[in-house]
Amino acid sequence: MNILDLMRERRTIRLFQQRPVSDAEIRTILDCARYASCAANMQRLRYAVVRPPELVKAVFDTAAWGAMVRPRRTPEWGRTAPPCFVAVISPADAPPVLEADAGAAIQTIEYAAWELGLGCCWIGSFDRERCRRLLELPEERSILYLVALGRPAESPVAEEASGSVRYYLDDADVLHVPKYSVDDLTTWL
Amino acid sequence: MNILDLMRERRTIRLFQQRPVSDAEIRTILDCARYASCAANMQRLRYAVVRPPELVKAVFDTAAWGAMVRPRRTPEWGRTAPPCFVAVISPADAPPVLEADAGAAIQTIEYAAWELGLGCCWIGSFDRERCRRLLELPEERSILYLVALGRPAESPVAEEASGSVRYYLDDADVLHVPKYSVDDLTTWL
Repeated sequence: MNILDLMRERRTIRLFQQRPVSDAEIRTILDCARYASCAANMQRLRYAVVRPPELVKAVFDTAAWGAMVRPRRTPEWGRTAPPCFVAVISPADAPPVLEADAGAAIQTIEYAAWELGLGCCWIGSFDRERCRRLLELPEERSILYLVALGRPAESPVAEEASGSVRYYLDDADVLHVPKYSVDDLTTWL
Repeated sequence: MNILDLMRERRTIRLFQQRPVSDAEIRTILDCARYASCAANMQRLRYAVVRPPELVKAVFDTAAWGAMVRPRRTPEWGRTAPPCFVAVISPADAPPVLEADAGAAIQTIEYAAWELGLGCCWIGSFDRERCRRLLELPEERSILYLVALGRPAESPVAEEASGSVRYYLDDADVLHVPKYSVDDLTTWL
């Protein structure tokens, strides 16, 4: 797919097929992420790939999903939950710019995953301390974000925002994601 | 180009050809950025496209470039400076997650630009207050980052890091950017 189209068509995925993601797929995705932009090329982020089902379940139980589309976009363990997570890890005393580094890396993960036929949900709402302990990370590390990864079991669509940007489900259970236009967002000097 | 290759091959550009970037190119780039991931789909970032040469020059003068490769990667006005900037703007009291949103949007801008034959430098080191006044933004807005945009006049290369990730110029004035391997960065659970 053309990269411009891919970047426009990729959507967040919250319902997943119950099929595994291969290590080779995850390795390809992280091979792209390692080249993502980062402040002063310092590459301070690290990744943990969560694969054992009991650990995926435990991490899954720490996370909240799509507040505006509960319960229909809260995945169910054993039915629509992601088969794995990538945890994005920083030093615990990370400066704000590592949030920006994480954004660049996660956006790259999402694009690479989409190119491989996979979907992601970037999760910021989860119990960070519980998750850190589950992953047996030292106190000097912090999990900035989780990325749920798997084969999509839904097909969300973007649409032009008219006022609200609140995402919603229609009667056919399709997720709609309103987006502002370039003109809404941009000042041309 | 294959998107995975593009994401691996794109590099930060600090020297630019003295040719304009068209409004159509910038619009295509921002049309991708508006679909980038953002927290709760709230789309709180805004963009200002800086095009008038005297304003580009004034913004240019607020910025610092590639600390480790001065002066050879400090662009010169009228010779290697970027023809335009995109300023990424947030509310002044932005929560940290808007840094992550900015990272996702800027990474998208970089990929879209590269696909169009353009290069970017994501700039975090600049006089934010002076820049805000130059762009006549109210005090309630803050410029999180600048993105310099133009046609590349250098061809940096990535290489495998062996110890240091300090980027450097070789005898042929090529910029080398050491990157950690997937194995360096990743724990497989």
